Amino acid sequence: MLAFSRSQRALTRSARLQTLVVAKQSLGQRAASTTVNYDWEDPLNLESQLTEDEIAIRDVARAYCQENLMPRVLKGWRTEEFDHQALPEMGKLGLLGPTIEGYGCAGASNVAYGLVAREIERVDSGYRSTASVQSSLVMHPINEFGTDAQKEKFLPRLAKGELVGAFGLTEPNHGSDPAGMETTAEEVDGGFIINGSKTWITNAPAADVFIIWARCKWDKRVRGFILEKGMKGLSAPQIKNKVALRASATGSIFMDSVRVGHDSLLPKSKGLGSAFSCLNSARYGISWGVMGALEDCLARTRTYALERNQFKRPLASFQLVQKKLADAHTEIALGLQASLQVGRLKDEGKAAPEMISLVKRNNCGKALEHARIVLDILGGNASSDEYHVGRHVANLQVANTYEGTNDIHALILGKAITGIAAFAN
Amino acid sequence: MLAFSRSQRALTRSARLQTLVVAKQSLGQRAASTTVNYDWEDPLNLESQLTEDEIAIRDVARAYCQENLMPRVLKGWRTEEFDHQALPEMGKLGLLGPTIEGYGCAGASNVAYGLVAREIERVDSGYRSTASVQSSLVMHPINEFGTDAQKEKFLPRLAKGELVGAFGLTEPNHGSDPAGMETTAEEVDGGFIINGSKTWITNAPAADVFIIWARCKWDKRVRGFILEKGMKGLSAPQIKNKVALRASATGSIFMDSVRVGHDSLLPKSKGLGSAFSCLNSARYGISWGVMGALEDCLARTRTYALERNQFKRPLASFQLVQKKLADAHTEIALGLQASLQVGRLKDEGKAAPEMISLVKRNNCGKALEHARIVLDILGGNASSDEYHVGRHVANLQVANTYEGTNDIHALILGKAITGIAAFAN
Amino acid sequence: MLAFSRSQRALTRSARLQTLVVAKQSLGQRAASTTVNYDWEDPLNLESQLTEDEIAIRDVARAYCQENLMPRVLKGWRTEEFDHQALPEMGKLGLLGPTIEGYGCAGASNVAYGLVAREIERVDSGYRSTASVQSSLVMHPINEFGTDAQKEKFLPRLAKGELVGAFGLTEPNHGSDPAGMETTAEEVDGGFIINGSKTWITNAPAADVFIIWARCKWDKRVRGFILEKGMKGLSAPQIKNKVALRASATGSIFMDSVRVGHDSLLPKSKGLGSAFSCLNSARYGISWGVMGALEDCLARTRTYALERNQFKRPLASFQLVQKKLADAHTEIALGLQASLQVGRLKDEGKAAPEMISLVKRNNCGKALEHARIVLDILGGNASSDEYHVGRHVANLQVANTYEGTNDIHALILGKAITGIAAFAN
Amino acid sequence: MLAFSRSQRALTRSARLQTLVVAKQSLGQRAASTTVNYDWEDPLNLESQLTEDEIAIRDVARAYCQENLMPRVLKGWRTEEFDHQALPEMGKLGLLGPTIEGYGCAGASNVAYGLVAREIERVDSGYRSTASVQSSLVMHPINEFGTDAQKEKFLPRLAKGELVGAFGLTEPNHGSDPAGMETTAEEVDGGFIINGSKTWITNAPAADVFIIWARCKWDKRVRGFILEKGMKGLSAPQIKNKVALRASATGSIFMDSVRVGHDSLLPKSKGLGSAFSCLNSARYGISWGVMGALEDCLARTRTYALERNQFKRPLASFQLVQKKLADAHTEIALGLQASLQVGRLKDEGKAAPEMISLVKRNNCGKALEHARIVLDILGGNASSDEYHVGRHVANLQVANTYEGTNDIHALILGKAITGIAAFAN
Repeated sequence: MLAFSRSQRALTRSARLQTLVVAKQSLGQRAASTTVNYDWEDPLNLESQLTEDEIAIRDVARAYCQENLMPRVLKGWRTEEFDHQALPEMGKLGLLGPTIEGYGCAGASNVAYGLVAREIERVDSGYRSTASVQSSLVMHPINEFGTDAQKEKFLPRLAKGELVGAFGLTEPNHGSDPAGMETTAEEVDGGFIINGSKTWITNAPAADVFIIWARCKWDKRVRGFILEKGMKGLSAPQIKNKVALRASATGSIFMDSVRVGHDSLLPKSKGLGSAFSCLNSARYGISWGVMGALEDCLARTRTYALERNQFKRPLASFQLVQKKLADAHTEIALGLQASLQVGRLKDEGKAAPEMISLVKRNNCGKALEHARIVLDILGGNASSDEYHVGRHVANLQVANTYEGTNDIHALILGKAITGIAAFAN
Repeated sequence: MLAFSRSQRALTRSARLQTLVVAKQSLGQRAASTTVNYDWEDPLNLESQLTEDEIAIRDVARAYCQENLMPRVLKGWRTEEFDHQALPEMGKLGLLGPTIEGYGCAGASNVAYGLVAREIERVDSGYRSTASVQSSLVMHPINEFGTDAQKEKFLPRLAKGELVGAFGLTEPNHGSDPAGMETTAEEVDGGFIINGSKTWITNAPAADVFIIWARCKWDKRVRGFILEKGMKGLSAPQIKNKVALRASATGSIFMDSVRVGHDSLLPKSKGLGSAFSCLNSARYGISWGVMGALEDCLARTRTYALERNQFKRPLASFQLVQKKLADAHTEIALGLQASLQVGRLKDEGKAAPEMISLVKRNNCGKALEHARIVLDILGGNASSDEYHVGRHVANLQVANTYEGTNDIHALILGKAITGIAAFAN
Repeated sequence: MLAFSRSQRALTRSARLQTLVVAKQSLGQRAASTTVNYDWEDPLNLESQLTEDEIAIRDVARAYCQENLMPRVLKGWRTEEFDHQALPEMGKLGLLGPTIEGYGCAGASNVAYGLVAREIERVDSGYRSTASVQSSLVMHPINEFGTDAQKEKFLPRLAKGELVGAFGLTEPNHGSDPAGMETTAEEVDGGFIINGSKTWITNAPAADVFIIWARCKWDKRVRGFILEKGMKGLSAPQIKNKVALRASATGSIFMDSVRVGHDSLLPKSKGLGSAFSCLNSARYGISWGVMGALEDCLARTRTYALERNQFKRPLASFQLVQKKLADAHTEIALGLQASLQVGRLKDEGKAAPEMISLVKRNNCGKALEHARIVLDILGGNASSDEYHVGRHVANLQVANTYEGTNDIHALILGKAITGIAAFAN
Repeated sequence: MLAFSRSQRALTRSARLQTLVVAKQSLGQRAASTTVNYDWEDPLNLESQLTEDEIAIRDVARAYCQENLMPRVLKGWRTEEFDHQALPEMGKLGLLGPTIEGYGCAGASNVAYGLVAREIERVDSGYRSTASVQSSLVMHPINEFGTDAQKEKFLPRLAKGELVGAFGLTEPNHGSDPAGMETTAEEVDGGFIINGSKTWITNAPAADVFIIWARCKWDKRVRGFILEKGMKGLSAPQIKNKVALRASATGSIFMDSVRVGHDSLLPKSKGLGSAFSCLNSARYGISWGVMGALEDCLARTRTYALERNQFKRPLASFQLVQKKLADAHTEIALGLQASLQVGRLKDEGKAAPEMISLVKRNNCGKALEHARIVLDILGGNASSDEYHVGRHVANLQVANTYEGTNDIHALILGKAITGIAAFAN
């Protein structure tokens, strides 16, 4: 397995190592073994790996989410009404499109972006979906693939939450296979005519701006277009009676010969790869977000287990309960640590899409699995929405499915490992 | 949940953030989104997080293990004979007690120590056990709790692998509960008399030096003693016919009124906490080691799946096979990343024992689970020891059990989360 | 789904059943090995193990549920309104208290009772809960522990569904530990005074008759009492905004010095054992019911997988999808076969309570696990209630928790295996 | 474990059985609800579903296995030597080919056959493999596809265990896909010439009789041939150093222009379907056998958990231990009940091959999963072969893989459910 030359080099290095004797380490000096306290809410000391600015933006986000979103979430969940306050509030705090530089955006790190997603989803995956779409799926493609005019026109208002964005990629018959896209753009005098439909589109019913992906008839390539509410032939009715993500509004988008100008085309978008670039940004954020949801499930069921007695002892004293908590706790620690590394690599331009598949899939899958497990700690109270964990569980099933199902990401990784595409197997 | 003052502080920070607008990040500049290749053998780019010295020692270890241990492992497995060459060879390369400064040791980082464990266990958990005991359970306690004379006498020869060490803590009736220790030390004229027995002791049949933990009759506290082969009343017969870890020698230790001098006491050892300090060091190494074993299982079954056709297609093209590979692959990425962080914190003196419980338990449990899953890819060949994965699977069951079973570490974490000890529940 | 003629035939059979008593079972002789077709909807040929009468009552139930309940279930789920038609309709067909002999009940086998539960839960666990409570938790205790006068007064009207029953055992602070009961009965001149509260009581908001379990102050034993709607001090407000079982009404019961006559006492009820006898009957029915829910999940996702193409092939052709279906399918086969055996033993008076714990726990746990797994096949459509599987998933979490959580039944079995009670561990 | 008197009684019954034919089953009438004791070793009262003859043959088998095989199993495991006594001993008791009528066979039910497999595998899967091959893969095809002369010549001596049989279907490159068979039979003057090789063939090194499947050059169809030890060009070397099934001998079969007479052809064998018919018989037996292995794991770990104290309490009192036992216990109950039903259907000629896939896959998968889980209860002792559970665990991995891997059977079921073959996906 090891090439000879490499092994030789290694042995040479070893010789060097023996003469060095002491390899000093840049990071920090070796410390005396004083007792270190374990913080169950930060098991691997994530805090020490964040910059001051990241901590600051995280604290802003946490305070806002707990103080403003948390009190409204049950109403949103029960009514399925879009929360028109949320995006403007987030915008005010600099939480929208936070990695973008300029246009009133924070220019923060990808880790900061992840931390924000985690805080929002600690309250609800629906709210986080609303924000993910705005930041990763609308602001990101305009910033990446748009003209200066498009950026000037849309980004500042999207950043402030004055405009609500939606992202139209998924079609009724092509959930996991965007290459089957049926929506078309035809060039006509003065612009384009867009025909087609999209479904399960977060924010659609409330959206002012739609990033629509369509196959261009002239060269069969897929490109993005910016559509705006009120255009003739464009409608976006809400899908009601969802069993999950009820605090966010989801809809279909119907485009019946919608006529747009040439300036609606995102000129730098080139094929599905551009759409996937948006998805990658969103998926990365989701990998952080779902950890926040699981953290909330853990915190709530832990408190419940400590306060609730059965057989004259707190539930928290039972081995079967402790194991549930310990397992969830462990996956949180691992998932956050992995997303942190992907975020750092993203900032350095060293993140491959498969890394994002790995953390998106793992964190969503584990969050769902363990949220379900700790839910059982609540016993009969699990079925009350006032205990919140059942809501997270329902939400996380969707998070585990959208933006690439768990299985699709397994096959993306499988392809990376084996070199063989098995999507159609 | 958020205290008011904290939230206020956060909002103040937010204001600052708004005026900063652009938070520059110290780590590195934001990079253009050029394509990054995904390395399935290093999914989260561990390499970029290592120092040059760590890479060097890892490469030395890998070359040695693949070139020297790998060709001998089947013989070791089949015969259960202790490999007398292994420790001297490792010693020559600086792989024993590598974190110790002085006494001919490398003075490397804890991460380097973990990388070495991973390379050895990539070949076999038995070899890694042999080395773990030498480094973490024998050299570490002498270095931490010994006198200068003890260090001078034993550490250089242990570092060279001239002496083989064993660690006697576990007793026949007290596997998960060392507090029930029955071995005793009685002070007598000129030293101590040790009575008791230990079992499942790695290296014991070949050991020259034994770190024995005994309850001191005069104050009921547990302390460590250094015993040496050939002492009257000391015997260490091998336990044969193991179903796992057959490449390492395991034995019992019987102490029938073994008389030792005062200089055999490790004077700074104070109660079980000192023994646990050794276990923590070993467990940390195991958390790295088992990832190496799983990596080997993944690499071997991947190769097999690519080379083996069924239904006229490579096994690697089947979805059910790709999922198995992707799952193992993911857990490797997560486990290594977590152990890396614990290693960094250990170097900084910021690692709590519970962190080690977390990575020991998670990595062993996941390594075992996924080694078992990928083993099935081999079909009938799984039962041949020449395919190696079955051997890893058998070994990992022990790794998941020794040095704190999976359940015991769950309850350690459970206690950290809830504040309630449930070990005896 | 059911052809009209079949349903008609079934109704005719049902009428006959009302007067019939015992069925013959034809065991075939050893046969030549001609090809046997595999029926994926009946993998182990359950049909051949049923009596004609059991098949008849099953067909009646299936036709009714699919034709009458299925069209109403989404309304019930969305509004959380109690379906006042359901019990009278079921009563008309002989589906309530079906194992009771006399009082207008069918006198059918316990297997028939299980088959009915399965058909109802194939539509919704909430409807099945409503029926379980009526049959097992209200009619059963009156029949087992009541006086002739009580039976005459209540059973015929409960059997017809004219009266709605509820069962008050669980208290706010004692979900898994009924021995901690705080509700009391005090003997006073002319009867008893009942004080206390119950929670998570199915049917309570709509109930006319309440079987209330209370600790009798005079001897500290627990006994059952029949309370009726409208009694002074008795109230049963609905718990709204559930995340599951929304098609059934759940409430609390508050008893503020409710005065009842001596004739309200169930005289043969003796201690908690009597309450547990009711739970055993209900749990047995649940073990069948949840299999029906899982069967519906399997049938729906199978159809979806056959109709839905991705990558130009039906989802049903993907290995990862087939495995999900095969696993659910297997657990259905096993769970039904086990419940059948327990039903047969119950009919023969040979069923131990632990057997019921075994099938209740296993079937609920497996139904929940596999319903969740097949749900993922629906992709984004999983979150629409019109695809029904998400509703089953939410319901089954409750079924797995109520009437003894999965863990409590594990410990019941653990006690049976080891002789050691570990509930309070 | 078995008292002598019981074993004696069993042997007496067995003698009677040899001449007996059919059994009566007494279905009890509906009984009063007196207390029923739960037998943890027979949770769903399998005993009551067996005929007297089935019980008799089971008791014979159990006594023999515990008294004769159990004391030899460690030697077999450690040395990988074929146990030449085992088949003759089994033959003497009527345990070989027990479902065959005539030729000195017992003519017992398929359930009886399953019960025998369970008793043998309670000791070791290797012994059961030896017996499965003899009964299902050698005697069965001769009985089904052979001439009267072939039956007369081979069956009596195979039934007595005087001849050892082996079954050559699997080839080195076609584990899960027998359609790729490369072994050929060419018709020549006076008979056939067979060329090819087989691998992982149980009993091969010790076999006197080989059922070899070969593709006939004249019509490309696969047929079975009876080969005998000593034929020129036929060799069957042992594969040593297995990590599992070490108590049985496994080998390759090489056929280098082996010349056989026309009378070696099994004339009624028609294509792969005939080979699959043998596999179905064997798989059915395996479904019972592995439950026996898991029962042994449960019994041993239960005893260990009761006898072993940690933290001053028996391991059996810990919730985490009880859950492990309860889960294994549950799967045993379900698996046996399902195999019983398939056995009954088989006797009636109503068993479809998919039913056998279902129980083979489920029971092997569950036996392996839960044997692994309870193994952990043994702590460090898990790695000693004297505790036996580690040996079962290693064996069950093979049982879960051979005769159709878990995944292959999932896809067989997937095809039955969806109508779509996905083997090559």
